[in-house]
Amino acid sequence: MKIFRKLLAWSIFASFTLTTPLSTALSQQAQPYTYPPGLLTELKQLEQSALASDYAYRQVARLCNNIGPRLSGSPQAAHAVRYIADEMRRLGLDVQLEKVMVTHWVRGVETAELVKFAGQAPGTTQKLVLTALGGSVATPAEGLTADVVVVQDFDQLQSLEKERVAGKIVVFNKRFDQQMAAQGFAGNAYGQAVAYRVAGASVAARKGAVASLIRSVGGADYRLPHTGSLRYEDNAPKIPAGALSAEDAELVAYLASQGDVRLHLTLTPQTLPDVESYNVIADLKGSEHPEQVVIVSGHLDSWDLGTGAIDDGAGVVIAMQAVNLIKHLGLKPKRTIRFIAWMNEENGLAGGRTYAIDHKNEFGNHVAAIESDLGAGHPTGVSAHAGAKAVEILQPLAAILQEIGAGVVRQTSGAEGADVTPLDVAGVPTLSPIQDSRTYFNYHHTSADTLDKINPRELAENAAVMVVAAYAIACLPDPLPR
Amino acid sequence: MKIFRKLLAWSIFASFTLTTPLSTALSQQAQPYTYPPGLLTELKQLEQSALASDYAYRQVARLCNNIGPRLSGSPQAAHAVRYIADEMRRLGLDVQLEKVMVTHWVRGVETAELVKFAGQAPGTTQKLVLTALGGSVATPAEGLTADVVVVQDFDQLQSLEKERVAGKIVVFNKRFDQQMAAQGFAGNAYGQAVAYRVAGASVAARKGAVASLIRSVGGADYRLPHTGSLRYEDNAPKIPAGALSAEDAELVAYLASQGDVRLHLTLTPQTLPDVESYNVIADLKGSEHPEQVVIVSGHLDSWDLGTGAIDDGAGVVIAMQAVNLIKHLGLKPKRTIRFIAWMNEENGLAGGRTYAIDHKNEFGNHVAAIESDLGAGHPTGVSAHAGAKAVEILQPLAAILQEIGAGVVRQTSGAEGADVTPLDVAGVPTLSPIQDSRTYFNYHHTSADTLDKINPRELAENAAVMVVAAYAIACLPDPLPR
Repeated sequence: MKIFRKLLAWSIFASFTLTTPLSTALSQQAQPYTYPPGLLTELKQLEQSALASDYAYRQVARLCNNIGPRLSGSPQAAHAVRYIADEMRRLGLDVQLEKVMVTHWVRGVETAELVKFAGQAPGTTQKLVLTALGGSVATPAEGLTADVVVVQDFDQLQSLEKERVAGKIVVFNKRFDQQMAAQGFAGNAYGQAVAYRVAGASVAARKGAVASLIRSVGGADYRLPHTGSLRYEDNAPKIPAGALSAEDAELVAYLASQGDVRLHLTLTPQTLPDVESYNVIADLKGSEHPEQVVIVSGHLDSWDLGTGAIDDGAGVVIAMQAVNLIKHLGLKPKRTIRFIAWMNEENGLAGGRTYAIDHKNEFGNHVAAIESDLGAGHPTGVSAHAGAKAVEILQPLAAILQEIGAGVVRQTSGAEGADVTPLDVAGVPTLSPIQDSRTYFNYHHTSADTLDKINPRELAENAAVMVVAAYAIACLPDPLPR
Repeated sequence: MKIFRKLLAWSIFASFTLTTPLSTALSQQAQPYTYPPGLLTELKQLEQSALASDYAYRQVARLCNNIGPRLSGSPQAAHAVRYIADEMRRLGLDVQLEKVMVTHWVRGVETAELVKFAGQAPGTTQKLVLTALGGSVATPAEGLTADVVVVQDFDQLQSLEKERVAGKIVVFNKRFDQQMAAQGFAGNAYGQAVAYRVAGASVAARKGAVASLIRSVGGADYRLPHTGSLRYEDNAPKIPAGALSAEDAELVAYLASQGDVRLHLTLTPQTLPDVESYNVIADLKGSEHPEQVVIVSGHLDSWDLGTGAIDDGAGVVIAMQAVNLIKHLGLKPKRTIRFIAWMNEENGLAGGRTYAIDHKNEFGNHVAAIESDLGAGHPTGVSAHAGAKAVEILQPLAAILQEIGAGVVRQTSGAEGADVTPLDVAGVPTLSPIQDSRTYFNYHHTSADTLDKINPRELAENAAVMVVAAYAIACLPDPLPR
């Protein structure tokens, strides 16, 4: 009842503020795009229902706590595919499992200890905390032992003679800029540091290194290593690669400044044969233009250290909640709303790529693709990589979402979700909630990415953003322009 | 030069504020205790020198990074004893290694995984992050497997029938009150939770449990287990005991609320024969009353997971800096200032106990004992467990230390340092810097207790508090009253 009164009051207010000359005059802009009052009422209803429901939180608890880590190729990933498909069928959606061949990399032993360093107590070593990078080849089972070369960045490595590096373990001590992240530029901070994770091993190998260790890409100071994928380049030997905790990278750098440091490294991951897996695709058919598709999505696979709560259980359940709410409220979108739980975002992006190949001919009818893959922090709005006209058409969402502090509708310079990038490249407008990511990279790809990192209220706010954006785009008179 | 001018200006100001009728009238108290102006100048000089010196930081870097973890009985602890003794000799102090027999507990394998729980993917387990508690006995080498019983506290366990607990693994999911800690009551928060670490195993064993796991005693949410000592009671079977990360305790509690949870636990620590170790004692002899002793101290042993930076490398080097500065400035305390690096605070307190036995007959000449064992956070002053008269005599320290924000001189209800407790019990006034401990228990007893947790400026501030308090007490006309 309370919600109903709120909705009524709001729809009167919204019609007024969105259409009167006064608001136009105040904003000093052209006549804003207006939504049909009925649609505005439905959007408000969806927003309120998202906030009132614990469905998304219960689903992410299930993914994280009952199923656990969901690395591509793992039994948990396979189980999660079945679980999500069943749940979507239960909601009455039209479910397809679309085949995706995924890499099957499994973590093994991962240990390291300093065996020689200045001032060491006789007969002792110092244990380092590290993790293998996804895709890394193994050391010999008994490990390898070599002196280290510590560099701050690629330039410093390149400035060294090859014989200074050959036969050694390179340690890239590139700091993650936590202050940049804390000021709201987490993606930029990540971009700067992640280059070392992706390319470090091959750059070091070309200098003759026998292994490559990076300083973990992420903030916080709890001696936590961050995993993530590397990419071996074709023209370089494949050498084992890991990520030290920030503390351990600092320790090695400190000791290397005092003299020779020798390290014993054991990493025994394996790359097994590729495994058949699936994108879970569930359609809520459009009533007028079923062939026109609006995607709501997150990625179902996760890294193996934590349980994939913020990366990206949250994204999957936000998208689940979007279709759940529309179904539950009996709303009928004009266009098809397509839920996708992408597979293999973390170490291959096979899900996104395969979808792009399999559905290429239908891209003309893909109206928009929304993905949430930056956690579950409080959203301040929605970002869109789309043309100026499309972003103008999305502006009324601001008035809906402002109630939860999510009233920013912002144009971005590229797709925010990796899985929707192939669609983005093909010209499909892509959207994402604008999440509070100030501490996201403290937990990202670590053992600490667990359920407790999700605030139920903030998760619900994100679901509100996703469902409001998707339903609006699915119901506007015309397809969102490209 | 700059420092000198500052000192001159300050000593004029201090004489005025501490002795004029105006200040007395304002404070509405009896005529305050006054220090000789020469002493005040020396104290200010010591404070300024502490802030200007990096000696303490260089020493703690050496302990943490070059020597590493210093668990009692370890080669690193033995090496640290030699290192500190050499350093004290280098400063020209009179050094004694006083024998202490210490326990020699060594960590082994520590793994746990959930093997049965609601909703699990077929053929999978879930890894838990945990660590053995210090002193724990081992499981069989291949581990043990049992169902879990999760309780919130002792009362809940006691309310269960013995057959509900017999043969099971008890999980005490007692939360550390992080909000209490954040509001400045870290010690209270610790006290509430640590009871489960100390006594949990025996309480569970008396109910027939085969193992006991606590939720780690500490704040933060980075999936970090906290070790620490347990105490087996004589009238209970000794069962293996560990600490889960907070996240894992929550996970087990969540799953246990849905059905049976079975856990496979492997802990293989060993208790080896006791080892001969030492308190490092270094005297800076008093010029007038060499038999009267003021102790400055911290404990040299640490847990083995981290490198013992805030617990308690910091305390040791703060005390080292106290004697270093007095020596370096050529000051002559009237009473002996005795540096002590205590051994075995963490798992036995053998150092403090042995000193109390060996020096019992000299306690009458122990004027005060200062220990720093709550990290290296910014000090707001100094606390004293001493009589009201003694605390009054210490008040002028406030005027000295206020420049660094450490102008609180507070009476406490007991000794703050564990090692000086036997002295405290014997009536010797005990003092400690009042450290910012709001995040201390986030890192305490974890792998993340590493050098980077120490802010060099704040470490220097603590050294200033220690040296100012010690030197004042060593130079006052009369011994501090009891």
